[in-house]
Order: sequence, then C-alpha cells, then structure tokens
Amino acid sequence: MEKHVLGLELPTDPRWVNIAEMNIREILVDHAYCEQKAASNAISLIIKYPERKLLVEMLTPLVAEEWSHFARVLDELHKRGLTLGPNRKDEYVDKLQTILRKGGGKDEQLVEKLLLSALIEARSCERFSLLRDHIDDTVLAEFYGGLFESEARHHSTYVQMACQFAPAEVVRARLDELAAAEAEIIAPRDPLPRMHS
Amino acid sequence: MEKHVLGLELPTDPRWVNIAEMNIREILVDHAYCEQKAASNAISLIIKYPERKLLVEMLTPLVAEEWSHFARVLDELHKRGLTLGPNRKDEYVDKLQTILRKGGGKDEQLVEKLLLSALIEARSCERFSLLRDHIDDTVLAEFYGGLFESEARHHSTYVQMACQFAPAEVVRARLDELAAAEAEIIAPRDPLPRMHS
Repeated sequence: MEKHVLGLELPTDPRWVNIAEMNIREILVDHAYCEQKAASNAISLIIKYPERKLLVEMLTPLVAEEWSHFARVLDELHKRGLTLGPNRKDEYVDKLQTILRKGGGKDEQLVEKLLLSALIEARSCERFSLLRDHIDDTVLAEFYGGLFESEARHHSTYVQMACQFAPAEVVRARLDELAAAEAEIIAPRDPLPRMHS
Repeated sequence: MEKHVLGLELPTDPRWVNIAEMNIREILVDHAYCEQKAASNAISLIIKYPERKLLVEMLTPLVAEEWSHFARVLDELHKRGLTLGPNRKDEYVDKLQTILRKGGGKDEQLVEKLLLSALIEARSCERFSLLRDHIDDTVLAEFYGGLFESEARHHSTYVQMACQFAPAEVVRARLDELAAAEAEIIAPRDPLPRMHS
C-alpha cells in the first residue's frame, strides 16, 4: 500500500477536517487531552525504565514540550471563552493497545510501547497538517502549522529511541505492521471531532 | 505547639541533613521522583476538575515548573555520573493519604487534596532549606536554595487554590490539623536519605 505522512497507511477521511472545523471546541478539548496523555505516557516510560539513561534523557524534554502544548491549547480555549471540560474515553488508543505484542523481554516490550507512541504522534501530525491547510481560522491554522513540526519531531524521536533497543530494520518492519493495524482500526470509523477518530 | 516553616509543626530531626549529605545519590533519586509525583499529582487534579477554570490555570504552569525541576535534578545526577534508578515506595505520602477526610462533596474532597499537596510542598521546602544551609557541596547547596523559593511559592499556590473552594479560616484550621497529623507521621521515623523520611 502507498505510504502517507510518516509511514501512515491510510490518509484521514477528507470529511474529517470539515467536521473538526465545525466543532472547534470539541477538537481543542480533545487535543488538550491528547497532549496531556502524551506527557503522562512519557512520564510513565521514565518511571518504568529509569535505568535507561539515554531514554530518560530523550523523554524528559519531550514531557516538557508536550506539557507546553497542553498549556497552549488551553490558552486557545480560554481566548475563545471556552473551558477544558471532561476527558472522553479514547477508543482509538484503547484499540491500538490491543495490537501490541504481549510477552517478550523488557526491551521488546519497550520497543512496542515506543512504536505505539511513534504511531500516535504520526496520526496527530497528519491531523495537524489538515487543520493547518484547510481551516479558515488563520490563527488556529498557524497554531497547528507550528505544532505539526513538533509532532513530526516527536515521531522521529520515538523511532530513534526504539532503535536503541532493536536493530533499525526490525523497528522499521514492526512500525509498518503497526501502521497497517492502525489503518484497519481507523478505516471503518465515521469521522468525529476528535484528533484520533 | 510552636509553628515552623510554612506551618509545619515538627522540625526535621537534625541528624537528617548529615544522613542526606552522606547519601547524595539516594537523595537526588528520591528528589527526582518527588518532582515527578508533584507533576503527576497536579496533572491528575486537572483531569479530575477540568471545569474549574482558575484551578486549571494555576495548576498548568505548576506542572511545567515541577517538571523543569525533575529535569534539573536529573542533570545533577548525570553530572555526577549517576543515573535515575528505580522509584521506591513512598510510605510518607501513603500515610498522609489516610488522614484525609473521606466523603463530603466534590469541593470538600478537592480542598483536602489541595491541602495535602500544600503540606508536602512545605515539608520539601523545609528539607531544601536544610540542604541549602548545611551541606558542604556549594553547587548543590545553591541548587537547593533556588528550589526552596519555588517550593514555598507552590505551597502558597495550593493554599490559595483551596481558598477558592472553602472560606480562608476553614482552610487555615484544616491545614493546622493536617500539619499536626503530619508531625505524628514523621516523629517516630528514623531519618532516612529521603526527602520525606
């Protein structure tokens, strides 16, 4: 199958960006929680693998950056007179979790987790590029343009980290498998005003 | 009983700072996890009370600051050729959790959580001042002097947040009760190379 942004196999349904634009509050709230979950996920990797010096050194600034994005999304909400509101169940991430290999050593488990994170960053990245290119709100379009670059960098950082614990060709092959599984998860879903619907 | 730093009822055992100085790696690792737990705790308050706009606005920069401290402690470890190492069970915080009032409305529960956070910040603050004033490593003494001011500010921020959800005199009285209970938890313990032993 043809590859799209950062190795994703399936481009987002073209209807999604219009649905997102008509539901900016929902998108911003969902996005804020995506950034929070990205920060919390990186923290949990540090706690689980504290003896991996380089991993901890790469994840620590990544947490700070994800959290700075949370703060910026919150600011965009507040500027529009909106508040954060409750988090919703994240079926996309829950389904992705089920495709990870169970068992194996601690390093194999770590590679699975890092590649899942890389994949989620790739999908966020693709969505940000759609918002950057297609929404009429120029302030928000520019905002997402800036974040697009960070998410692309985070995707690469996660892949690099995985390459510390497995040969690069194994990492690349597994990322392709996970991207194929991600495409199957996302394909049958009607687009919703979420970052990962 | 006489009050000490930030309303604490019991000053730290004078032997603690010597034990800490002889076990700098353990102190730094424990301290790094204290900063991580402070960041994670503030994130969990945001997730639990997202509709409280002012609370979310005050906690968001606090998370960033706690995480920047985590990064600085990690840097102090690495400069000394040390690594993070595993987290240890935090009996101090576990015991403190048991003194919180159960039941009540969502706001009462929130006040309890905020005052517990204020109290933990106060104890960290007191420990940082001991390290600042008594250890021979001048670089580390200065490091803790800088962090002392942040922790004192975080203590005040948590008390201010609690005052949004309960009258100031109720908050003050409850903080005194919690400080008395904290003193009873800390009194019988032999000093260990931990921030909250």
